[in-house]
Amino acid sequence: MSLICKPLFEHESSTFTYLIADSVTKEAAIIDAVDCMIERDIALIEELDLDLKFIIETHIHADHVTSACPLKNKYPNAKIVLGIENTSAEACADIMAGEGHVLPIGKHEITAIETPGHTIGCMSFLVDNKLFTGDSLFIRSTGRCDFQGGSASTLYHSIQKLFALPDSTIVYPGHDYNGFTVSTIGEEKKFNTLVREDYDQETFIKKVGSLDLSLPKKINVAVPANQSCGLISS
Amino acid sequence: MSLICKPLFEHESSTFTYLIADSVTKEAAIIDAVDCMIERDIALIEELDLDLKFIIETHIHADHVTSACPLKNKYPNAKIVLGIENTSAEACADIMAGEGHVLPIGKHEITAIETPGHTIGCMSFLVDNKLFTGDSLFIRSTGRCDFQGGSASTLYHSIQKLFALPDSTIVYPGHDYNGFTVSTIGEEKKFNTLVREDYDQETFIKKVGSLDLSLPKKINVAVPANQSCGLISS
Repeated sequence: MSLICKPLFEHESSTFTYLIADSVTKEAAIIDAVDCMIERDIALIEELDLDLKFIIETHIHADHVTSACPLKNKYPNAKIVLGIENTSAEACADIMAGEGHVLPIGKHEITAIETPGHTIGCMSFLVDNKLFTGDSLFIRSTGRCDFQGGSASTLYHSIQKLFALPDSTIVYPGHDYNGFTVSTIGEEKKFNTLVREDYDQETFIKKVGSLDLSLPKKINVAVPANQSCGLISS
Repeated sequence: MSLICKPLFEHESSTFTYLIADSVTKEAAIIDAVDCMIERDIALIEELDLDLKFIIETHIHADHVTSACPLKNKYPNAKIVLGIENTSAEACADIMAGEGHVLPIGKHEITAIETPGHTIGCMSFLVDNKLFTGDSLFIRSTGRCDFQGGSASTLYHSIQKLFALPDSTIVYPGHDYNGFTVSTIGEEKKFNTLVREDYDQETFIKKVGSLDLSLPKKINVAVPANQSCGLISS
């Protein structure tokens, strides 16, 4: 009854994709799959003989294009899942998941948690003690809040919801730029450089506001492509 | 009594470093730490309040310089551990570990397994159901065998030892170049492209011999530096 959990990395955008599955029934979900890695990801799904039920996007990404639509072409029974506030992409989604929406894979339940702030429609997903945080919470950092409806005060409140989970909850982020792969809620509450528990909302807003980041190279291609779930128009 | 296991990645050489620790006693070991990531690694050791007992090298690396000596300067009670056949580096090691040598961290035991072939002194290390394979076994691949005493026939036999472990054993490789992070012995026996269980020794030798790889950029710096455990002579 154990959960298969395969973190997969895409180097150009430093994106983590997660393939998770019930080890008995082989029902599976993939979170934040990247277009250029689709061959690797399909090969792994085939090797592990998985039954892909859900293709989950934590949000409308600005730095890479999702492989959601191409994956659905390959696995037509899989449902594309987006957060409920991503109305710009509603046409390509099968499920618009709101707070508490449950996506079952075998004996395991993937529970949606609305965590807006990096973008307006950002979601996190909890399976057993594993939390997939997308760009809401990184290891020792967080997503930026300066485009696509982002709001540092909103993200601050979203992260407080995640910080209410048990300290032992394992954090799997949507990106990492420093070679980290895994953390815990307990660690992030103590050591996150932007949002640890002894920083108040004003401190967080000031820290996120002073990040001084350039725009993602692919933003003008990625956002519209991801609003159609990675559908390549011919 | 659970084991903390933090896979850490260094992008330039695609090297995995592993920080492992007993969650209760905080006794810890670091496997294949990289010189340029020492600040990240020390920060994590400090944050987690770990008591570093062992600085383990799976082999004399050719593609990056270890931070073993600088780490020992910081944590003088930690022992540098090398495989017993690495006689060229014996002067800087505290423990020359042979087959079955046990390195205790709290309630957990790190057991050395001699797996020569990529280099003459290559080791793997088993902790609970977690196998750290260095460059002996990669995800769907293996280390090359064309320098530092490498031998494909020797590596073939080493990998058969690893394949005798339970299929559920989790494989943590020394490198990955495709964004994989974790596998199992069962998966590698079925799907490794060079050494899966239905390939005989001759097939493996032919496949490894035809890899046609260029030399690592840092080989002329890294090998002598690692023969002194990363000691920078002033």
